[in-house]
Amino acid sequence: MGLGNKSDVDDSEALEYLAHDKDTQVIAIYMEGIKDGRKFLEAAQKAAKDKPLLILKSGRTEAGIQASMSHTGSLAVKDETFNAVCKKIGAIRVKDFEELMDLTKAFALQPLAKGNRIGIASMTGAGCVMAADYSAEYGLEVAELSDETVKYIESYLPSWIKVKNPFDSEMLFESVGPEDCLKISIGGILGDKNVDCAVCVLPLTPMFTYDIETPINEIRKKHPDKPLTINVIGSKDVVDLWTKQLENAGVPVYPSIQRCVRALGALSKYPKISSALASDSNSAQS
Amino acid sequence: MGLGNKSDVDDSEALEYLAHDKDTQVIAIYMEGIKDGRKFLEAAQKAAKDKPLLILKSGRTEAGIQASMSHTGSLAVKDETFNAVCKKIGAIRVKDFEELMDLTKAFALQPLAKGNRIGIASMTGAGCVMAADYSAEYGLEVAELSDETVKYIESYLPSWIKVKNPFDSEMLFESVGPEDCLKISIGGILGDKNVDCAVCVLPLTPMFTYDIETPINEIRKKHPDKPLTINVIGSKDVVDLWTKQLENAGVPVYPSIQRCVRALGALSKYPKISSALASDSNSAQS
Repeated sequence: MGLGNKSDVDDSEALEYLAHDKDTQVIAIYMEGIKDGRKFLEAAQKAAKDKPLLILKSGRTEAGIQASMSHTGSLAVKDETFNAVCKKIGAIRVKDFEELMDLTKAFALQPLAKGNRIGIASMTGAGCVMAADYSAEYGLEVAELSDETVKYIESYLPSWIKVKNPFDSEMLFESVGPEDCLKISIGGILGDKNVDCAVCVLPLTPMFTYDIETPINEIRKKHPDKPLTINVIGSKDVVDLWTKQLENAGVPVYPSIQRCVRALGALSKYPKISSALASDSNSAQS
Repeated sequence: MGLGNKSDVDDSEALEYLAHDKDTQVIAIYMEGIKDGRKFLEAAQKAAKDKPLLILKSGRTEAGIQASMSHTGSLAVKDETFNAVCKKIGAIRVKDFEELMDLTKAFALQPLAKGNRIGIASMTGAGCVMAADYSAEYGLEVAELSDETVKYIESYLPSWIKVKNPFDSEMLFESVGPEDCLKISIGGILGDKNVDCAVCVLPLTPMFTYDIETPINEIRKKHPDKPLTINVIGSKDVVDLWTKQLENAGVPVYPSIQRCVRALGALSKYPKISSALASDSNSAQS
């Protein structure tokens, strides 16, 4: 909902409504300033207790604050103060609309991660390296695969290939074909007891068009409790088609590895935020 | 071109080739490590002297370096060292493929900015605030419009509206219609002597479909020496169509304000990098 210039309904009231709305799973808000700080804080804190609350607040710099004055006339809040507020109430602060939409999609489609250990399967070696880099940046740890998983995947590969995480799935693709490659790599990795979430990098060329929906649906049904994001790279037609199919199957697709890993980072960080909040309010009650 | 595992041709040789290739305007490279440091440095330095050189280097973190070992077996380079190398040779280091493609597109389609003063025209107030925030982040200064431009734009508006930068063009849109709104706002701002580059934020709904190519073509022909980027937001069909039309007209389109402003930041920073390099080599010669 757009609140216009907020002369009547303000952010706090919208938050209160969305926190109570049964059909709302995630709350994503764009705001510029705060008129009544205490009211906002209370509403946001209540909302964030029940649902992931993502906040995009502009007016972060002097130039932005000046522009905001003419737009909504909102009072400026020091950026560090607002960061501290978000941390206190358990809201996730994002930096742009892209991140707001990316994380909203992740929270809406995927379960939370129970830990921060990421599994990586990429059809290109570069994807492996980049996903590992981003994992470190977004607070995720590259999981050590269990012996079972390693043996399982290696059983489909020539003997000179050693499987590890990140897993470069090109040879597997060539050995077993596209559908089975997905099932064995992503399915195997997501099922590993040492893995809490996984990212899959899928570059495609027209040559590589195949049924993606069936294997991914199967994997999701087998591992509904672990989040998965997919980066599809390739010609626009196929990317559009696969994105639609994969998101129908409940797996968020992003156009970059960075955005895939960032989403998993948020799904892994949020449970910690929310359990910290719960223990805060328990100790306050006792 | 893909260099595979670089057992024969390496980055340095590819750089040398691209630096000499007349059809190459911008060089964008993805790399993991460096085998022969001196050779790379020399090739990169030469290449960056003539053309914008954008480098995406992964293996930035310990996790990424580990993954890179299995991929290309490249030797790791300390990330700070590589940053220093890029600075020295005048290369622009980017963080992901999205930024690599974004900036390549900007350098390929647009002129360099002669300074860092940005003009902002947005059909939404939020766009104004966010673009101002990003400008500060990417080293751009929100330009102060000259009296001539202010008067020119105000002459099309009700008298109670004061024009300034960032310019919220909603009322102008309502006063003069979509095509003239673009010509007057973006055209006026881009023509201002205090403005070195401009960003335009265009949200659309099916209601707002109109001919965008003609006015933008006209604006570009009138101001070929100042870079412009456009953020189109809306339903996928129209975004796809407009992106195609605008990029045919030579204006890069990005799906977020942040990416629009980041591209302008690079176009504004690069002339400084390259003139610093020129004066370096002049003083070395004298």
